[in-house]
Amino acid sequence: MQETTMANVANKLKSADNILILAHARPDGDTLGSSYALCAALQNAGKKSRVLCNDKPAAKFDYFIKNAVQEEFTPELVISVDIADKKLLGKDVESAWGDKVDLSVDHHANNRLFAKESWVDASCAATVEMIYQLLVHLSYDITPYIADCLFTGLTTDTGCFRYANVTPKTHEIAAQLMKAGANAGEINKIHFETKTKAFMLLEQIALDSLAFHFDGKCALVSIMQKDFEKTGSSEDDIDAIVAMPRQIEGVFVGATMREKKEGVFKISTRTHDPVDAAAISGRLGGGGHKRAAGCEVYGTFEEAKAAYLAAVKAELEASGI
Amino acid sequence: MQETTMANVANKLKSADNILILAHARPDGDTLGSSYALCAALQNAGKKSRVLCNDKPAAKFDYFIKNAVQEEFTPELVISVDIADKKLLGKDVESAWGDKVDLSVDHHANNRLFAKESWVDASCAATVEMIYQLLVHLSYDITPYIADCLFTGLTTDTGCFRYANVTPKTHEIAAQLMKAGANAGEINKIHFETKTKAFMLLEQIALDSLAFHFDGKCALVSIMQKDFEKTGSSEDDIDAIVAMPRQIEGVFVGATMREKKEGVFKISTRTHDPVDAAAISGRLGGGGHKRAAGCEVYGTFEEAKAAYLAAVKAELEASGI
Repeated sequence: MQETTMANVANKLKSADNILILAHARPDGDTLGSSYALCAALQNAGKKSRVLCNDKPAAKFDYFIKNAVQEEFTPELVISVDIADKKLLGKDVESAWGDKVDLSVDHHANNRLFAKESWVDASCAATVEMIYQLLVHLSYDITPYIADCLFTGLTTDTGCFRYANVTPKTHEIAAQLMKAGANAGEINKIHFETKTKAFMLLEQIALDSLAFHFDGKCALVSIMQKDFEKTGSSEDDIDAIVAMPRQIEGVFVGATMREKKEGVFKISTRTHDPVDAAAISGRLGGGGHKRAAGCEVYGTFEEAKAAYLAAVKAELEASGI
Repeated sequence: MQETTMANVANKLKSADNILILAHARPDGDTLGSSYALCAALQNAGKKSRVLCNDKPAAKFDYFIKNAVQEEFTPELVISVDIADKKLLGKDVESAWGDKVDLSVDHHANNRLFAKESWVDASCAATVEMIYQLLVHLSYDITPYIADCLFTGLTTDTGCFRYANVTPKTHEIAAQLMKAGANAGEINKIHFETKTKAFMLLEQIALDSLAFHFDGKCALVSIMQKDFEKTGSSEDDIDAIVAMPRQIEGVFVGATMREKKEGVFKISTRTHDPVDAAAISGRLGGGGHKRAAGCEVYGTFEEAKAAYLAAVKAELEASGI
């Protein structure tokens, strides 16, 4: 339950032969890219390794997952990647391994230090940056396969190098991975140029519902349960919708109302400076961060909307805009 | 009218004192970033310089354009940046300077060598990559202002490092520009996280019109003249819409029909391998490239659509999919 260094993680990996790697539940590109890159590198170094994840990865990651070799063995070392809290392992994996994690490699500042030893570097935009540095430190070869895995985590965790978490190091590692053979253009196309039909239909419904309030300072979209079901869209699709209203020029508060069941609305708030998203949600019993927060509101659609807009109005006034 | 090297361009710039820089008409981030970076660097080196552009840049570039110093002088050296053909200077600038361009710095492989001497490097994703290398070669300081200009060209010409034109060098230069003080996160937010209300309304109309044909292999959106006018959207907005239908999973032909005037439809085609966009457009008297092409079709909406879909059907069959 203590912090450790890259050098110690490298030594532990060097002296073990059978290594189990844990990815987090509802896996994203960073936990998968980190896991499969590390697994392949350990196997190339003559060790046995496999990746364990509570949930099946999305098909869009097939380009590296389907080529992975998964080996059977009794683990002597268990390492988790991109996981800040053992709860994020997911129910089954947590109950089997949650208290037996030897090493944690993670870029989240709020890592709970649930593993015996944790190497945490919050200056990294993605955990794959740490895995890249670890493999270089170990003098493990960055094969084209490993480069694809690592590039996947790098691009997906940074919105294709778009977000404020990107540092010069992120771009330097991207350059090295491309030199090592990462299919950067293809990988970006899969993750950033491909939309499912379900998502397009959900986006259509969301855009049709788009309404502006308070001189365009608040943009609100709403999705009813029946629409969500009708389109066959997923929780990931909702995440992309939630990001949209705040992107509109002049908008300080972007809100997405989603009917969870009759009379219950989940409202996600995204704001621009100086409006506090957590304060808006807090007025309705929810919480979150300054720029992203959420709450649940009860009643009819009109009642829930009125209650929410009253909270937005109060916080716009409190911000003096 | 001949090709030249970076070293020669550097020498010409060093020995001139009054330098006019030409950006292309309908200016984008690469021509503007290249121009204003070079202009500032030359001024910092004690020379007089200004940027000339046929059209007013969009307000989203204000963050560097509004801080630029523009000087009056009689040019002794005229240099164009990111311009493959003198026609792209725009009418007024072409008639004044089209035949008097001393140097051209450009990353387009099809540069027409219209300047007295042209340094063309098609391995660069953006002309700013060339300007960056030129400034380093000249030992000119990359100030935070210059870094912002160059980063703008780099990120806008690569779709935020998303497209297949990105090389390791692109990422390496991005890293260097961030170290030199480029506000990468803010710049990306301006260009990739901000949508105008006009665009959102146009996107809503486009999504409402979305229809699938041939088992989902073709996705077609349509925008009528009245919708385009109603939303107040621009030609740039149309470009973003045109990219959309091909992004849908399973789609080989993404098409956008736009009513130019009554009875005239411009149809933009974007395809995925193996379907040939130019062949589809060619069947209707248009042309273009393998992945992007256009044509004009006459008649009512239903007639134009039927004629276009017949061409798509023929090319889907010719492609064997």
